[in-house]
Amino acid sequence: MKMVTRTVDLRSDTVTKPSDVMRAAMANADVDDDALGTDPTAFRLESEVAKVMGKEAAVFVPSGTMGNLIAVLVHCEIRGSEVILGDDSHIHVYENGGISTFGGVHPKTIKNNPDGTMDIDKIEAAIRTPIDSLYYPTTRLICLENTQANCGGRCISAEYTDRVGEIAKKHGLKLHIDGARIFNASVALRVPVHRLVQAADSVSVCLSKGLGAPAGSVLVGSKNFIAKARRLRKALGGCMRQVGVLCAAAYVALSENVSKLEDDHRKAKIIAEGLSQIEQFSVDTKSVETNMVFFTILDTSVLSPKRLCQVLEERGVLVLPSSSTSIRIVLHYQISDNDVNYALTCIKQAVHQILTEASPNNGN
Amino acid sequence: MKMVTRTVDLRSDTVTKPSDVMRAAMANADVDDDALGTDPTAFRLESEVAKVMGKEAAVFVPSGTMGNLIAVLVHCEIRGSEVILGDDSHIHVYENGGISTFGGVHPKTIKNNPDGTMDIDKIEAAIRTPIDSLYYPTTRLICLENTQANCGGRCISAEYTDRVGEIAKKHGLKLHIDGARIFNASVALRVPVHRLVQAADSVSVCLSKGLGAPAGSVLVGSKNFIAKARRLRKALGGCMRQVGVLCAAAYVALSENVSKLEDDHRKAKIIAEGLSQIEQFSVDTKSVETNMVFFTILDTSVLSPKRLCQVLEERGVLVLPSSSTSIRIVLHYQISDNDVNYALTCIKQAVHQILTEASPNNGN
Amino acid sequence: MKMVTRTVDLRSDTVTKPSDVMRAAMANADVDDDALGTDPTAFRLESEVAKVMGKEAAVFVPSGTMGNLIAVLVHCEIRGSEVILGDDSHIHVYENGGISTFGGVHPKTIKNNPDGTMDIDKIEAAIRTPIDSLYYPTTRLICLENTQANCGGRCISAEYTDRVGEIAKKHGLKLHIDGARIFNASVALRVPVHRLVQAADSVSVCLSKGLGAPAGSVLVGSKNFIAKARRLRKALGGCMRQVGVLCAAAYVALSENVSKLEDDHRKAKIIAEGLSQIEQFSVDTKSVETNMVFFTILDTSVLSPKRLCQVLEERGVLVLPSSSTSIRIVLHYQISDNDVNYALTCIKQAVHQILTEASPNNGN
Amino acid sequence: MKMVTRTVDLRSDTVTKPSDVMRAAMANADVDDDALGTDPTAFRLESEVAKVMGKEAAVFVPSGTMGNLIAVLVHCEIRGSEVILGDDSHIHVYENGGISTFGGVHPKTIKNNPDGTMDIDKIEAAIRTPIDSLYYPTTRLICLENTQANCGGRCISAEYTDRVGEIAKKHGLKLHIDGARIFNASVALRVPVHRLVQAADSVSVCLSKGLGAPAGSVLVGSKNFIAKARRLRKALGGCMRQVGVLCAAAYVALSENVSKLEDDHRKAKIIAEGLSQIEQFSVDTKSVETNMVFFTILDTSVLSPKRLCQVLEERGVLVLPSSSTSIRIVLHYQISDNDVNYALTCIKQAVHQILTEASPNNGN
Repeated sequence: MKMVTRTVDLRSDTVTKPSDVMRAAMANADVDDDALGTDPTAFRLESEVAKVMGKEAAVFVPSGTMGNLIAVLVHCEIRGSEVILGDDSHIHVYENGGISTFGGVHPKTIKNNPDGTMDIDKIEAAIRTPIDSLYYPTTRLICLENTQANCGGRCISAEYTDRVGEIAKKHGLKLHIDGARIFNASVALRVPVHRLVQAADSVSVCLSKGLGAPAGSVLVGSKNFIAKARRLRKALGGCMRQVGVLCAAAYVALSENVSKLEDDHRKAKIIAEGLSQIEQFSVDTKSVETNMVFFTILDTSVLSPKRLCQVLEERGVLVLPSSSTSIRIVLHYQISDNDVNYALTCIKQAVHQILTEASPNNGN
Repeated sequence: MKMVTRTVDLRSDTVTKPSDVMRAAMANADVDDDALGTDPTAFRLESEVAKVMGKEAAVFVPSGTMGNLIAVLVHCEIRGSEVILGDDSHIHVYENGGISTFGGVHPKTIKNNPDGTMDIDKIEAAIRTPIDSLYYPTTRLICLENTQANCGGRCISAEYTDRVGEIAKKHGLKLHIDGARIFNASVALRVPVHRLVQAADSVSVCLSKGLGAPAGSVLVGSKNFIAKARRLRKALGGCMRQVGVLCAAAYVALSENVSKLEDDHRKAKIIAEGLSQIEQFSVDTKSVETNMVFFTILDTSVLSPKRLCQVLEERGVLVLPSSSTSIRIVLHYQISDNDVNYALTCIKQAVHQILTEASPNNGN
Repeated sequence: MKMVTRTVDLRSDTVTKPSDVMRAAMANADVDDDALGTDPTAFRLESEVAKVMGKEAAVFVPSGTMGNLIAVLVHCEIRGSEVILGDDSHIHVYENGGISTFGGVHPKTIKNNPDGTMDIDKIEAAIRTPIDSLYYPTTRLICLENTQANCGGRCISAEYTDRVGEIAKKHGLKLHIDGARIFNASVALRVPVHRLVQAADSVSVCLSKGLGAPAGSVLVGSKNFIAKARRLRKALGGCMRQVGVLCAAAYVALSENVSKLEDDHRKAKIIAEGLSQIEQFSVDTKSVETNMVFFTILDTSVLSPKRLCQVLEERGVLVLPSSSTSIRIVLHYQISDNDVNYALTCIKQAVHQILTEASPNNGN
Repeated sequence: MKMVTRTVDLRSDTVTKPSDVMRAAMANADVDDDALGTDPTAFRLESEVAKVMGKEAAVFVPSGTMGNLIAVLVHCEIRGSEVILGDDSHIHVYENGGISTFGGVHPKTIKNNPDGTMDIDKIEAAIRTPIDSLYYPTTRLICLENTQANCGGRCISAEYTDRVGEIAKKHGLKLHIDGARIFNASVALRVPVHRLVQAADSVSVCLSKGLGAPAGSVLVGSKNFIAKARRLRKALGGCMRQVGVLCAAAYVALSENVSKLEDDHRKAKIIAEGLSQIEQFSVDTKSVETNMVFFTILDTSVLSPKRLCQVLEERGVLVLPSSSTSIRIVLHYQISDNDVNYALTCIKQAVHQILTEASPNNGN
């Protein structure tokens, strides 16, 4: 393996390192035992996120996975609950089936459209109530994800969300939004984040993705919802003591980094444009709305995602396969324009290298 | 409501009444405490079903739902398991989400094709192993359903089942077949039932559907599987004491009624043909392979499934809506050719009545 | 092994064979599909048991284990529930931990006193509410068992039950009674069964123990409770089709056999008296209130419960060890006075045989 | 309420504030995305704790509750498992019943003796295997707690632990130790911590109690155990991104603060001695082995724990009731000898104040 002198980490927006301001905030945080309910810095962060999201209350959790798990379990606190969610949603695909494993909640999936939505009529048709039949679980929750990562980081509009919220309300269901990247959606759509989640009963917001906090998500909702969420956080083992040290860094992330997301989206478009000019790839540049770029390798017989990732890693460019034919690239504020150019150059070189190795004569 | 002088119950093949021979068998059954493992009639039935299905062992359960629940829980006995099954399968749609509710098992659904199968490549692509990712549950089971009821009682071939079995084996998974109506498939395909389930690690077989037993299913599999199933049956409360009284009737069902299924299929085709000649309906007569007929009402604005069922009930013909535009009819051995003709006549009259009521002038 | 010419089965009151009247009832039962809610014989039995127990509604279940499981799951339908119950209760000891396994319900045990009760102040001290602490599950249910089998079939008085009911009501909890042998308690205490369970929100009553039905229990409670219980019965797989055949036999059991329980208690006292005169045993004859006798072997070095059971089995007398030093005998209406005498004689002979084998010289 | 000029927080050893060295460590930590397995500071802490505990591998978790929950779920990964643990253990009493709620694990409690142990013969008698009965769950785990907090922070010896380990091994069970305060036990017993846990298959060690880290516990065990634990940590939402910031502080706690525990124990004895001289209290000074002191109020009619805590809070001394008649005091390294004296003085004054208020004339 070559000596790597430079690393451009495009695997996820979770890889950012805490900034100096965040580190100083951690070092100086005023903290106390949050399990006893008295950590002032946790309180400050939770209050701020609740305000920004337009909800009554908030609770800090170690991860977005726990935020989503708690939300589903609170809304589906009665045994025999079913949740309607996208077949490509993070909760369904990437959270270990935890809602079933730990909560016994039965998922009913609806196909995610390429734009990240689910057809409204399919959602409504999937709702099942105790009156319907002795044979059915009871639908109690609909989950949306905004941005919808697996569909390419697509933004879900306020109008669509409102319509799903109306369906939920009409049938006595709750609406949860996995808002891991809700600020990306807000910035891209130029809609305040509280407006985007207005129809939701709960939202989990990640602070350690594009916003760059070292760790943590915040779950928001009504006071009653958050009171129940706090019990579940304790039960799951997600309640930490002087957690204010993490909340201090997360507060900086929230204060300083939302405004940087727009630049991530700009850089994503540059990457997408660059990739679209590589003949071995297919990339739908118009679908790049936020900080994610997915591209497909047209012929994977030689140029497989796995091999491409390997060769790129040798050059210090880190990306991850997203399927057997595609690769995902995620931008964040610690990637410079220079890094973007470097990555594109490396990708071109890697493609050439792999094809050359496979057919040495072609290299002449 | 009119005075009903005759009832033709086509809601399900579960509605059959025990025959005189079954009643005599119950009255004379040699029984003992099955919880202590000593009921000879339960033992005889279980041995016979195991033999017929070509499996090592068997256990009698109160219902097909419990048979399927136990099978999934035994195969997925380790926390964090995922099962691959059809999105229109009975287990997924009609069993209360019990595999999640009681067992924490996460379902991964694959679209059922109109013929009841799932695409083999989609099944294989859906398999997830612990090596793949820290984010995934672990696939441990594939479930098939034969006949596939919600697809119209379609038969799943031995060849298809074998291919799914190979996929399962290749990836270290188990294969369970919900064989609620496996004898219908066997008769329709003219393939011995043990051949149809050869690739399966377990099969649940219902004796109180077309075979006409008053109650009960039998779950078959390896000795080790059945030993675990017995523990789970006890834990779920499905172990009964002098259960031989039910097993005696079920034994009669198995001995006497398999041969009657072919006639049910013939009658189903007659119904389907009859319905296809009613202009307000659409029915795919070629898809009627066993004892089920689904037909679609072309314009439900006036002629809704619900209303049609009501009017038919007044005439003593019982059927159930299967969706907002369709109705399901199920044949069984206690429906005579005369009943079939009567039902068809009533359906035509009911259609006429409903349309006439809606547009009285048209009736002239 | 000797040729056994006679069997006296004292292992449990579950071993009774259905009587001729029960068999005739099964053969002639008017039945329909209970999953569709239309079996008249199930309806008749459920109505009758509800009436006798003084509750609004009832549902037939395959076993007492399922009755208890459903009851606990309905009362503890919200995630994070705790149930207070006796450390020697059937639910805690003999039902596979099903309330935790399938329902996630956390048990908080209180020591059962020798008379079957739990100290009232200990029950009250064990109650935990969400206000108490973020660290606690929430108590939602108290369970009693009447008669309390593991304490010797002891009767729980109406007054004691009322006091527990008051505690439950005061703290917003529900009270469930595992009334597997509630009719034995009623007969022994000379208190109507509805009076004994007056304070309970639900009761499961077994019809296949002393009452002799081939299978089945009935769960009673409010209409709302039973509606939820029906859903859970379906989900667990306990809903059977023409279940009226079992209900018909159970109806006979209820009508004809309650009056025979008193005689079982008389025979139990005779057995206890007889055993108390065997010097190798210790038996508290005063604690024999119903149809159960537990006796302790004073020196088990030679005369172990296991060996004694073996030797007795060779003579056709079936009993079960209840611990490493004790044996349980259960009376039922198919044990005659003659059987009682025969069993006592065999026990004396078996003791002699075992001691003689161990010290052959003593035999001279 | 009086103006409080000084606070002595004796509620728990979880209330310590991170030291300057810890804060600097957080500010300077070399971190990366731990979900991608590449955080060097997490790796360093985990390696060090594994080494100190004498186990193969380790994983950092947000809390001791999660550490215990994961350990129980890994050892009891098969459905239908039972765990044997103390009736006064933290897992049973203070962790929300999470092992049942989220894992379906059934607890079998054994009475904790005043010295924190459970009788060995009772443990062995409680073990249940599948061979025993169709009615039982399967014991798969024994849990100890060292120090045993609710028994007064009592130390469990290596010899006792070894004996329990032998029982576990003999029956094919695993042994987990809740070592929230295992370093206190090690220091008090003058036995290396790895020796104390030698017989255990897994141990959870808290770094944010007496050791003073802001947050986090570490779970140790075999490589295979920890691999499974990592999956469960992810599924529960306990995997954080740049978690190295917390691990850096925890590393300081481990390096610098173990040696301070002995002084905490000394201060606890001083408090206990002081309390023993207050005639209204009863305190067993000999049972004070580590950093906890429990004392009983002899007559709570006037001097209730709740009232005493209130009056002390007004004077800046924070303690918590441990029952309706007792109070718990916990020492830690941020409590000085001066604080100890101040607390004792305040307690005496508070007792006097409360008694005087109740009987004003006595005050003259």
